[in-house]
Amino acid sequence: MRTIDWTGDAIEIIDQTALPAKVGSVRITTVDQLIDAVRSLAVRGAPALGVAGALGVALAARTTEGLDLVVAVERVAMCRPTAVNLERGARRAAARLPEGPEAVLAEALLIRDEEIAASAAMAVRGANLVTEVCGPRPTMLTHCNTGALAAVSVGTALGAVVELHRRDALAGVIVSETRPLLQGARLTAWELAEADIPFRLAVDSAGPFLMARGQVDGVILGADRICANGDVVNKIGSYAHALGARAAGIPFIVVAPESTIDQWAPSGAAVEIEDRGSAEVLSFRGVCTAPEGVDAMNPAFDVTPYELVTAIVTEQRVIRPYRGELP
Amino acid sequence: MRTIDWTGDAIEIIDQTALPAKVGSVRITTVDQLIDAVRSLAVRGAPALGVAGALGVALAARTTEGLDLVVAVERVAMCRPTAVNLERGARRAAARLPEGPEAVLAEALLIRDEEIAASAAMAVRGANLVTEVCGPRPTMLTHCNTGALAAVSVGTALGAVVELHRRDALAGVIVSETRPLLQGARLTAWELAEADIPFRLAVDSAGPFLMARGQVDGVILGADRICANGDVVNKIGSYAHALGARAAGIPFIVVAPESTIDQWAPSGAAVEIEDRGSAEVLSFRGVCTAPEGVDAMNPAFDVTPYELVTAIVTEQRVIRPYRGELP
Repeated sequence: MRTIDWTGDAIEIIDQTALPAKVGSVRITTVDQLIDAVRSLAVRGAPALGVAGALGVALAARTTEGLDLVVAVERVAMCRPTAVNLERGARRAAARLPEGPEAVLAEALLIRDEEIAASAAMAVRGANLVTEVCGPRPTMLTHCNTGALAAVSVGTALGAVVELHRRDALAGVIVSETRPLLQGARLTAWELAEADIPFRLAVDSAGPFLMARGQVDGVILGADRICANGDVVNKIGSYAHALGARAAGIPFIVVAPESTIDQWAPSGAAVEIEDRGSAEVLSFRGVCTAPEGVDAMNPAFDVTPYELVTAIVTEQRVIRPYRGELP
Repeated sequence: MRTIDWTGDAIEIIDQTALPAKVGSVRITTVDQLIDAVRSLAVRGAPALGVAGALGVALAARTTEGLDLVVAVERVAMCRPTAVNLERGARRAAARLPEGPEAVLAEALLIRDEEIAASAAMAVRGANLVTEVCGPRPTMLTHCNTGALAAVSVGTALGAVVELHRRDALAGVIVSETRPLLQGARLTAWELAEADIPFRLAVDSAGPFLMARGQVDGVILGADRICANGDVVNKIGSYAHALGARAAGIPFIVVAPESTIDQWAPSGAAVEIEDRGSAEVLSFRGVCTAPEGVDAMNPAFDVTPYELVTAIVTEQRVIRPYRGELP
């Protein structure tokens, strides 16, 4: 099953807010529903958001016109500010608007197919690189979710992990739970269990210490945006893992499609980091974690400076920004 | 109200597992109850554990004798392996066993009074140091709970924070929630709210990024054990914050009593790090965070190498291990 797809008259997604308790799909027939799904992270992950943005515009093109359509495109493109793929997918589909709704849909489906092909290529290239720099049978630490659930199928960093397992070139995985929304504990753990890959969960803050104690051979994760200088914008906690990897002398590998590269962002300092508000930090599935009335900071992403990145793997190439190679 | 005290015939503690939902005390009349309270973290924090260990032995001396008493002392001393104060308090009280139960109790109460005095002295010395190295009105990030709840009263690092606020020399506090047991979100947030000190909560993994973005002027936290070379064993996540502080060029300050210094541990590598098992990571107050059957690593502490520590503040002195000063 694909994480996001077009059924002929609607968008269908796997509802990731319900996982792992419930595996179910949701039909999306309006732009408002699509925006709600993106904002609530029912659909998430850079590649999947690119497809969501494009299909959202395709949906708008079939249901509205004129000024309403222009407004709908903007709303879809901007409903999560840090995710470059969302806006890029929306704009690419919107460029076909003069040709009519079917052309827009065709572009969206092309983006979907490109992401599927890119995932497959990244899995192979990423696995090759891990074997080269982390050894023949490493334990890899990953953060957030970068599996099939973050793309259309296969995924980015987790796709490479699954490929390593398929090659019998992986000892196991340490999954950092990824507070506040626990994409690691809920989604990555679910995907690894389904794939029968040995893994253990850990709280996010344990990562750097487990690296220092020699229990991790490399870090592998995705990106929400890659800047022109190689700075990587990714889920909050990625930077702390990068600092830990550097201190422990182990590789820090980013796997993400070319569509995640944003040549308009010269460095991470230029990227707006979405603060998703207090509520996600203060409660977990309805259970309060703090006294009432407490305020929280909730930056959803952080910036890993390119100096800390061993390599960025895309479907086309391996980029080593610290060597002066640019995305 | 004191976090832990002797009522004349029993130990009384504030039950920290119930906070912040419920503020209540628990009477402890047997060694088994005391060990349960320590293991469940109903009583926790290095200074409070020293008193708990000593009062536990005092309780044993009043209720058992002979070989049973010897066994009880060992059980109390070793029921949490990483906390040096627990064993030290238990052994100090046990050294008075030949003089009878009242002498043991007197020693335990002396340890309690010493911790109260040490907290007061650390608050002043810690606040002075923060002003010196972090500026006249800093925003401080703290981790876990080091307030009155971790001691008998006042606390260690949080005692210094409260003193800074009293002096009007503090902009505010960022509290990292401290997964898995959320001592930051539950206990530190509760103490700061009670003291009317402005603060915001953040997930643990956000700390290093908030430092990189210039939103933190210094990190201040406690210690569960300080090694002879200045390595600091403290709540998991401390090391990640230390890496973040170093990268951001801001001070990383440890406040802990002399009783936390373990001259028998040459460095952090020599210290056994307690793994508290999967359950704490996999659920939060009965709500599952991961699919069923998942295994987790749960190191309760980590080691911050002395090179990353700006200063260790005790009730007697300020130690700067990177300058060759030894604890």
